[in-house]
Amino acid sequence: MTIENKSGCWVQAVDLRYPSLKDNTADADRLIEALKKQLDTDKVEIDFCLLRRLPDLLRNWKYRLRCILSKNRKGWILTSITKLQDADSIGGVAVDLGTSRVVLRLVDLLTGRILAESSFDNPQISIGPDILSRIHFADMDGGLEKLNSLIIDGLNKNIALLCNSCKLKLANIHLISVAGNTAMTHLFLKLNPHWLIREPYIPVVNRPGFVKAKELGITVNSQAMVFVFPNIGSYFGGDLIAGILFSGLNEAEDTSVLVDVGTNAEVVLGNRNWLIACAGAAGPALEGGVTRMGMMAGPGVIDKVSIDPATYNFNIHTIDNMPPKGICGSGLIDLAAQLFLAGLMDIRGKLISSRCGGRIFKKDGIDHLLVVSAKESADKTDLAISQADIDSLIRSKAAMYTILETITSSVGMLLNDLSTFYVAGTFGSFINPRSAISIGMMPDLPTETYKTLGNSSLGGATMAIRSSKCMDDIDKIREHITYLELNVNQDFMNRFSAAKFLPHTNLSLFPSVKTIRAVTSQ
Amino acid sequence: MTIENKSGCWVQAVDLRYPSLKDNTADADRLIEALKKQLDTDKVEIDFCLLRRLPDLLRNWKYRLRCILSKNRKGWILTSITKLQDADSIGGVAVDLGTSRVVLRLVDLLTGRILAESSFDNPQISIGPDILSRIHFADMDGGLEKLNSLIIDGLNKNIALLCNSCKLKLANIHLISVAGNTAMTHLFLKLNPHWLIREPYIPVVNRPGFVKAKELGITVNSQAMVFVFPNIGSYFGGDLIAGILFSGLNEAEDTSVLVDVGTNAEVVLGNRNWLIACAGAAGPALEGGVTRMGMMAGPGVIDKVSIDPATYNFNIHTIDNMPPKGICGSGLIDLAAQLFLAGLMDIRGKLISSRCGGRIFKKDGIDHLLVVSAKESADKTDLAISQADIDSLIRSKAAMYTILETITSSVGMLLNDLSTFYVAGTFGSFINPRSAISIGMMPDLPTETYKTLGNSSLGGATMAIRSSKCMDDIDKIREHITYLELNVNQDFMNRFSAAKFLPHTNLSLFPSVKTIRAVTSQ
Repeated sequence: MTIENKSGCWVQAVDLRYPSLKDNTADADRLIEALKKQLDTDKVEIDFCLLRRLPDLLRNWKYRLRCILSKNRKGWILTSITKLQDADSIGGVAVDLGTSRVVLRLVDLLTGRILAESSFDNPQISIGPDILSRIHFADMDGGLEKLNSLIIDGLNKNIALLCNSCKLKLANIHLISVAGNTAMTHLFLKLNPHWLIREPYIPVVNRPGFVKAKELGITVNSQAMVFVFPNIGSYFGGDLIAGILFSGLNEAEDTSVLVDVGTNAEVVLGNRNWLIACAGAAGPALEGGVTRMGMMAGPGVIDKVSIDPATYNFNIHTIDNMPPKGICGSGLIDLAAQLFLAGLMDIRGKLISSRCGGRIFKKDGIDHLLVVSAKESADKTDLAISQADIDSLIRSKAAMYTILETITSSVGMLLNDLSTFYVAGTFGSFINPRSAISIGMMPDLPTETYKTLGNSSLGGATMAIRSSKCMDDIDKIREHITYLELNVNQDFMNRFSAAKFLPHTNLSLFPSVKTIRAVTSQ
Repeated sequence: MTIENKSGCWVQAVDLRYPSLKDNTADADRLIEALKKQLDTDKVEIDFCLLRRLPDLLRNWKYRLRCILSKNRKGWILTSITKLQDADSIGGVAVDLGTSRVVLRLVDLLTGRILAESSFDNPQISIGPDILSRIHFADMDGGLEKLNSLIIDGLNKNIALLCNSCKLKLANIHLISVAGNTAMTHLFLKLNPHWLIREPYIPVVNRPGFVKAKELGITVNSQAMVFVFPNIGSYFGGDLIAGILFSGLNEAEDTSVLVDVGTNAEVVLGNRNWLIACAGAAGPALEGGVTRMGMMAGPGVIDKVSIDPATYNFNIHTIDNMPPKGICGSGLIDLAAQLFLAGLMDIRGKLISSRCGGRIFKKDGIDHLLVVSAKESADKTDLAISQADIDSLIRSKAAMYTILETITSSVGMLLNDLSTFYVAGTFGSFINPRSAISIGMMPDLPTETYKTLGNSSLGGATMAIRSSKCMDDIDKIREHITYLELNVNQDFMNRFSAAKFLPHTNLSLFPSVKTIRAVTSQ
C-alpha cells in the first residue's frame, strides 16, 4: 500500500488485496474490513445501493478506489466510491442556510481547497420575510411542501451554477453540509416546524446527522450525503453550532464570548471546558427592519457615519459609494454613537434639538433627524430617523449589553475578563467596535479584543466537509452547552434599566467612552 | 411506566415523558433516549423518513407508542412506530427462499405466535431449474432484473394472499426475515451473482443485514425492514446459518452434526465452542433429478418402499396415497435399502438378476428394475429405475458418508461420538434413518440420535423475527464457523472408495446392518 490519506478527510483511498481461494471474503466485507483498519473503528456500514454496482466497479478498478464516507451517531457509512486515479475533483458544498440569504461554497474534498462561492436570496422570502410567517404558512395545506420545494429548488439551481462555473459535474458532488437555524433546518428537511414556536418549543429533531441527498431531492451524485448541523433547541440552531466550531471558542483555554447579532442576539460564553449559551431578542432595530429608512446592507445603504464635533457636519459613507437610499444596522450604530459623542444626543438617547439645528423636524408629533437631504439621496426624498427609531436602538443595545452581563455574571465573571469577543454574522462584520462601545452596546474592551468572524456559519459548514474530525467537536459543543434561559426578572430589569443610558448609568464600566465624551461635550 | 415489553422483541412499547420547558429535547431525541435506556445501548438511530410524521403522531398518541426496530452491525435503528393501543397485529413474515420452493410464515411480532403459512414454487424456475442456469441468465442484458422481479413479484403476491387469509393489512407487516442460499440471496437483493460461481467464488456481500423493504420493491409497510441472513461464502448460505440457529447445535455442550441434503450435502459439525462446516456435491440422485422417474416430493410420489424378504413383494407407499407416478429421494433410499436387505442387490449395489425375477429388464443395454407396472401407475406407463440410477445413488451416499467421516476426523472425532444427528430440509424429513443407515449413507447411530428438523431454514428465519437476540447468535455462528475446504485428495478418495459399498467396506462400522443382512441373506 503506497496510498496516503489526509487525516480526517471524508475521502479515503483504499488499496484492497485481490480475493483468492484462501481469502474469499465478499466484496463488501473486504472493503469494510479495510476501512475499519484504516479508520481505526469497528463500526463501518456500507450503503445498500452501493452493493449493486460494487463487484463490477471493484474489478474494473483493480481493487483500488476512493471511498467517500459519512458518519452517524453509530459509526461510519460508506456511501460512494470512485476510481482511485479519477482526474475529476471530488466536490463538496458547504451551505449557510440563512433565513434571508443562502451562501454556498464549493470545496475540493481531497485537498480541502475552496473552488468557488456564491449566494442567493432565500426563495422562501416570497412566502414571508421572517421565520414566523413561514412557520404559520407551513401549517396550511401544502404549505410545508411549498416552502421546502422553494429552498430545495433554489439550492439545486445554484449548486448547478456553482459547479458549472468550475466545470465540475453535479455527479462529482458527494458531500454537502448545511448550517441553518432550527426553523430553516426543519423547512429544508421538510419537517413540521409547527411546534418550534409553541410552548415548550420542541424541534422534531436535534441531531439530523447525515441524510441522503436523494431523499431530500437534492440533485447531486445519487449517493451523496448531506450533513445537517444539529441544534440545541428551537432558538439555538445549527448555524450557531457551526459558528462556535468556526470561532474555535470551544478549544481555547481562556474564556471568550461569541455574539451573533440579528433579530435575536445569540450569545455563547465559554472555553474548552464549558459553554453557556443564550438567545434573547435584541430587537429588530439592529437588522434594519424598524427605522423608516432602515434596510439590510446593500449598495447605496449608509454603513458608516461620522459627525464633526466642531461643525456638526455629517460625513456619510454608503456601500459601493452609491447615492444614499437608507441605513443599515451598522450605520445606525455609527450614527447613534456619533450623535452622542458630538453632543447632539443626551445620555438618555434623546436628540438635543438645540444642537441639531435645522436637521430636526417634527412629523406626527415625533422628533425626526434629517440624515440625508432629498437632493443628495438616491430616491430624491429626505432620509431621516425618528426619535422612536433611536429609542428602539437604545432598547436593543441595552438588551444586548444586559444579556452579555447576565451570561458572564452567571459564571461569576466580569465582561472585562473576556479574552476575545467574537462578532459573527455578516451584520456583525460591519459593526465598528468603537461605535458599539460608545453607545454601550458592547463592553469597553481593547479594540484588538474584538474579532469579526464574517460568515461563521459558512465557515463551520466548510470545516465539517473538510474534516470528519469536526463531527466529534460538534458533538462535544452540543454536549457541553448549557442553555441559559433568560428570565426577565427584577435583576434583569435592573440591569436593563441601567443599560438604557449612553453608554451606561455606571460610567466606570466605559472608561474609554467617558474620556471622549469629556472632550466632545466641553 | 406500566408497560411491559417482551425481552428481545423487535417491538418495544414506549411511554415518553411529555416535553416541558425544563425538558425540551426534540421529539426524535426524546424517543431515542428512551429507547437507549430500554434497550440498554448507546447506539440507536432513527430512520429519517420517520421524522416527517413523528411530531404529529407523538402528540396524537399522547407520547405512548410502539416502536419497531431493526439492527445493523453498528446498532439499533428505529424504523416504524404504531399507536400503543392499536388493535391490529404487528406482523412479520419469515421467508425460506428456496431455489425450488419458497415458504412463507406470518408471525405476530408482539406475541411471537405463528398466524399462517404458505408456499409457492420459485417463479425463477421458468428461467432455469437450478442456480447455475439462473446465474448464467443473470449475465444477459436485463437478466438479473428479470430474475429479481420474478422473485419479488412472487413474494409480493404471496405475502398479500397470506395477509389476506388472516385479515391483516399489508401495512401491518413491519418486518421480514429471509433465509436463502447465497445465490438466491443475491438474486433477491438484485446483486450480481456472476462471481459466485467463478474462482475464487466471491459473493458481493456476506452480511447484508437489514435492508428497507421499499428499497427491494416489497410492498408491505413503507417503513418495513428486511433482515437477510448472512452467508459464509458462495457455497454456504444464509439458509444454513438459519438452520444452525434453528437446530441449537451452536448452543449445546456436546458435539452434534447437522446435515442438509440436497443437490449439495451441507454439513456442520460443532457445539457451543466451535463449528466446522463443509459443503460437497452429494450428487443430484438425492433430489430426484436423475432417475428417469425421479422427482421431488408431491402427491403420487413414492416416498416409502418395503420389500418382503420372503416373497420379494414390493410394498409401495405414495404421498397422499395417490396412484404412483414417480419416486423421490427418500423413496429411492428406502428402495435401495430394501433391495439390499432383501438380497436383490449385492454389496456393490448391483441388481442381482437371478433374484429379481421378472422385475429385471434390459433397455439400451442397461439393467432396469420395474418398481410399479403400467397398470398400477398414475400415467399407465412402467415406473422403473436403472442400474445407472442406483450407481448414481451409491456415489451420492458414498460422498455423503465420506464428507461426514472427513469432517469428524478433521477434529479427531469418530462418527459414533456424535450426540445428535440433525437432518434438515424437507427432503431430509422424509428420509428413514434406518434405510439411510442400511445403505451406509448415514452412520450407524441409535435411531433416537437422529432428529429431523423439517424446514430448518424457515425455522431459523422465524426465530430471527421473533427475537432480536438472534442477531448476536447469528453473528456468533458466522464468526465461529471454520469452513473446511474439501480437498479431493488420496485420503478422501480412499474413504470414498470404501464407502461405495453397501453399507461399507468396513462392516464393523455398521453393526446393526450386518445383523439384519445376516438374517435376510440366510
